Amino acid sequence: MEVAKVLHMNGGIGEASYAKNSLIAKKVILMTKSIRDEAITALYRNLSPETICIADLGCSSGPNTFLTISRLIQTIYEECKSDGQKQSPEFHVFLNDLPGNDFNTIFRSLTAFYDDLRKQMRDGFDPNCFVTGVAGSFYTRLFPSKSLHFVHSSYSLQWISQVPHGIEDNKGNIYVSRTSPPTVVKAYYELYERDFATFLKYRSKELVKGGRMILTMLGRKNEDLYSKGCYYVLEPLAMALKELVAMGLIEEEKVNSFNIPIYSPSPAEVKYVVEKEGSFTIDVLETSELCIDVSDETCGNTGPSDAQNDLHLCRVQEMVTPQDCSNGEYNVAHCLRAVTESLLVSHFGTELNMDQVFNKCREIFVNCMAKEKTTFTNVIISMTKRN
Amino acid sequence: MEVAKVLHMNGGIGEASYAKNSLIAKKVILMTKSIRDEAITALYRNLSPETICIADLGCSSGPNTFLTISRLIQTIYEECKSDGQKQSPEFHVFLNDLPGNDFNTIFRSLTAFYDDLRKQMRDGFDPNCFVTGVAGSFYTRLFPSKSLHFVHSSYSLQWISQVPHGIEDNKGNIYVSRTSPPTVVKAYYELYERDFATFLKYRSKELVKGGRMILTMLGRKNEDLYSKGCYYVLEPLAMALKELVAMGLIEEEKVNSFNIPIYSPSPAEVKYVVEKEGSFTIDVLETSELCIDVSDETCGNTGPSDAQNDLHLCRVQEMVTPQDCSNGEYNVAHCLRAVTESLLVSHFGTELNMDQVFNKCREIFVNCMAKEKTTFTNVIISMTKRN
Repeated sequence: MEVAKVLHMNGGIGEASYAKNSLIAKKVILMTKSIRDEAITALYRNLSPETICIADLGCSSGPNTFLTISRLIQTIYEECKSDGQKQSPEFHVFLNDLPGNDFNTIFRSLTAFYDDLRKQMRDGFDPNCFVTGVAGSFYTRLFPSKSLHFVHSSYSLQWISQVPHGIEDNKGNIYVSRTSPPTVVKAYYELYERDFATFLKYRSKELVKGGRMILTMLGRKNEDLYSKGCYYVLEPLAMALKELVAMGLIEEEKVNSFNIPIYSPSPAEVKYVVEKEGSFTIDVLETSELCIDVSDETCGNTGPSDAQNDLHLCRVQEMVTPQDCSNGEYNVAHCLRAVTESLLVSHFGTELNMDQVFNKCREIFVNCMAKEKTTFTNVIISMTKRN
Repeated sequence: MEVAKVLHMNGGIGEASYAKNSLIAKKVILMTKSIRDEAITALYRNLSPETICIADLGCSSGPNTFLTISRLIQTIYEECKSDGQKQSPEFHVFLNDLPGNDFNTIFRSLTAFYDDLRKQMRDGFDPNCFVTGVAGSFYTRLFPSKSLHFVHSSYSLQWISQVPHGIEDNKGNIYVSRTSPPTVVKAYYELYERDFATFLKYRSKELVKGGRMILTMLGRKNEDLYSKGCYYVLEPLAMALKELVAMGLIEEEKVNSFNIPIYSPSPAEVKYVVEKEGSFTIDVLETSELCIDVSDETCGNTGPSDAQNDLHLCRVQEMVTPQDCSNGEYNVAHCLRAVTESLLVSHFGTELNMDQVFNKCREIFVNCMAKEKTTFTNVIISMTKRN
């Protein structure tokens, strides 16, 4: 399976669309705002470009697509205002995703985005913002040399470029789980390392000197690949597929050969690749947690994580509460569907009944959530392109 | 009707799609190659940018979308090779059309475009070409200041920004035809003049000094708005709608209030607006003709037209022959459908049977073509941004 040709978040604006099921990704973007604000403000003070060129990699299609961009422009606007300037710089925005992404829906919501932007800006500031769409894998070159000032990516870089080779032993699993054999873990990690280094190399060509890059990935708190909860997010899908096998609705062999090209790195793994590749200095490296709670309880702040150096602290913890999604467990199954359906269709064909799969997922979610909370660990890194 | 929200060429790749019905537009692009080649070569020699930023305005979706870009890159590649250079510059390509355009189909054909480009380039030249999509009306700002080197637009600028006000007297017509009253002609022309001046003003902000712009429009040979054949291209649709009124299938009032926002300028009108606006010097201004011949005859070269100064000569004449389209008349009705269907649906709603409309068009085409050939007049202008 060629991930770049197959993978896309569900398009359109229907019930199973990513646009309707991207609350978690939204929360993550909001959680990481302060790190982005610091970076874009520092960039603007240092380089003062007349046009700030910003790329958002893995923009998807939906309400989150414009969220980061809108906040970044607002931050620069505040910076200009506080500095007594009469006009903010122009913004050239490049929204990137794989060619299967629904760019048509993005483009048809541009007018609303520009209208909102104009409402936010006052005092005669004119938000000269020009949005473009860029289709392609971020594991290839996407932009001309030295053409970007700021690169952002949220909840995309956990997707690796393909399903690793040599993971035939990963039977009963659909990703690197607690029960995957060491050869599978190694194959996933090695591909992750190679992909991420490629990503860094290409972005370093595209960014100007002093340019900034902020990446948030679905990651792990620490080096323990197998710790409880780490890969919780995909487990209900694995369990649902197993149940369908038991019910005789899919062939076991077909499920055994299905693997999702996701690797969730630890902060130390991220740090290792960035330092080895060498094009960027690390300004911030942290983890944070997002907790899905469909009960009325709240989970307490976990405080600093057991990360291995003082750059990465688990300093933020956010909640998706019953108020966020009145029918929370159902939304989580929908989210999983919006994200993984294209891969399932590609592997299993249309004979697999998606409603059946995700109704099963929903049941499993409800049962799991009755016992423990679902936690997403985010690894966030803020970097500067070296001279 | 807001043209920018409604108008789009038919998307996808089906029978009624623009992708399958854009032979005329393709011929026009091929006819104007030498003028583009001269302009991009001069630009490259004068400015030698490391990255050439090119915008194609009204790119649509289909085989023509990449045609111009591909030829421009090829030309620069030949220029670099003949100059003994080992590497061509990078290309940043901005494909623009209205938000209703099918950008998804464009993006999904990018891989094939890049593959073709690589095949064309040899001798170790690496075609570093980065394509982006830009959705919006070219009667608004689309790009940051001084961000483009080369602007191209073919068969798009005859579309004006809206249906002019005050044309209630245009009954029985669906555009500025021979039988339109003078008030209607005036309203259409004035809107054209305002729109084109706006277009020039915005592009002059977006182009660098010395940047080049080449525009081809469906136009007129001379000042005679009413001369035979001038608006021939839309007439079969007008006749088809009238026949449907006579058959009691549409209300006459509904047809009377339907007008297509197209104005086909003469070379003198184009020259007047460019000189009045003042941002550009004119390098070339010509007309050419494209003749649709479904018989086996050929039409002779018409030689210089009766244009009013030596800048504009009708020096090229091309044919769409029976070899181009074995079922020519049917294709022409299909073309008309691919281009006008979005406007018809917006005005008449889904109760208008499009198959019926365009089967009628087809009949009318066949009858007209038995009597005389269908001619498209193109006005082409090549300009340089003043210092």
